[in-house]
Amino acid sequence: MASLWLVPAPLDFGVDANAPLGDLLPLVTLRQAAQISHWVVENAKTARAFLKRVDTASPLVTPIQQQQIVELPRPPKGGGAVQVDFRPLLAPLRAGHELGLLSEAGLPAVADPGALLVAQAHREGLPVRSLAGSSSLVQALAASGLNGQCFAFQGYLPQDAAARALRIRELEAQSRRQGQTQLVIETPYRNQALLRALIDTLQPGTQLAVSLSLTTAQERTLSKPVAQWRAGVPDLPKDQPAIFSWLAS
Amino acid sequence: MASLWLVPAPLDFGVDANAPLGDLLPLVTLRQAAQISHWVVENAKTARAFLKRVDTASPLVTPIQQQQIVELPRPPKGGGAVQVDFRPLLAPLRAGHELGLLSEAGLPAVADPGALLVAQAHREGLPVRSLAGSSSLVQALAASGLNGQCFAFQGYLPQDAAARALRIRELEAQSRRQGQTQLVIETPYRNQALLRALIDTLQPGTQLAVSLSLTTAQERTLSKPVAQWRAGVPDLPKDQPAIFSWLAS
Repeated sequence: MASLWLVPAPLDFGVDANAPLGDLLPLVTLRQAAQISHWVVENAKTARAFLKRVDTASPLVTPIQQQQIVELPRPPKGGGAVQVDFRPLLAPLRAGHELGLLSEAGLPAVADPGALLVAQAHREGLPVRSLAGSSSLVQALAASGLNGQCFAFQGYLPQDAAARALRIRELEAQSRRQGQTQLVIETPYRNQALLRALIDTLQPGTQLAVSLSLTTAQERTLSKPVAQWRAGVPDLPKDQPAIFSWLAS
Repeated sequence: MASLWLVPAPLDFGVDANAPLGDLLPLVTLRQAAQISHWVVENAKTARAFLKRVDTASPLVTPIQQQQIVELPRPPKGGGAVQVDFRPLLAPLRAGHELGLLSEAGLPAVADPGALLVAQAHREGLPVRSLAGSSSLVQALAASGLNGQCFAFQGYLPQDAAARALRIRELEAQSRRQGQTQLVIETPYRNQALLRALIDTLQPGTQLAVSLSLTTAQERTLSKPVAQWRAGVPDLPKDQPAIFSWLAS
């Protein structure tokens, strides 16, 4: 029976597009990806670039030009619930074709809207299989040295400064109560603003970590108490994905 | 400068020890692991078996017999804070040797006690680098179809039935309030008892997912409302690692 395959992309966002994909993803993942001819993806253009890289590592069974690549509906601007019928996207799977779900970086359906497609597959009793690959969230958690036995990913924080500070304090209180590491992400060009807000808002004894460009040659993780961050705030690059995490003491 | 390397193990717990490691882990990870001669590991015996598999994919620079492999101190039975001095474990790193941290399955320092070693490295300003690899927690989250934009890993639930039910209800309330997927793990031989408790305790409309043997040929994810689980409770294998997740509606 055909499955919905959750196909991981490397974490480099295609930045180091010359690196062989076999360096970055396990061979079982690449071999399975090479079998798939029908795709639901976050971005069709980068999906085609990804498939070209797959082809070099494990020849594609179906040439890219003959593959069916459909984009996931984008969430409405300004938030709000997505009211989308995901059933048509699963038509190839119902017709017996292996169907791949692919996001821009890392595992699909984690920190992106793909989970709604997976949920629809489960509603229809269609098999779902995940392929081995990295997620930047857990790579960041591991590298932070913060509590990896109790943690929460909270997505994006509000952009409004007052609302953001309120939310940071709320999550810090939750971290203290539950011993829970809090993880958030931000659009890279706002990295510095978020770091500043975290340093200004969190308690001096809270441990704050920032991971940049995980699993690439540029990878860097800084992890120290807020009091030490205040002694000298580094300039974060505006073009590298960052993950922020903290644990209150 | 030498680094503390977070080295992922495959998710099969060595079950399918004949599978080439190059199938299961990215080559960059294997190549870097092959350079390391000093290790802190969860279990020395399985670490040696892992290194033998690495050697086949990417020849070890230092023969296994000459590698220094030290086990992480085990957490005290019955819980309680670990009062361990992790500084001696970092001595090879301070002396300029690349040092690897390895757990039984998946990324180290996630859902295991290794984070305390990573924290000590950060306290001393020693570089920490994570290598690409899978984590069963996020693989399960992706395959569940539950909310991947807001989720929490809560570790193990209490073994006492009453305490466990209380905790399940508490986490279900938190899931409802925050739209947050809750993830927990269990020792495989207690898989069935936990599934039963979740089915009996959660609200009928709550979506409950179980993932078994992720990224192996036996991989299976079941995800449906509790009301449907009640219609027929499957027998879970007692020897396969499972991850349980739920999202209240």
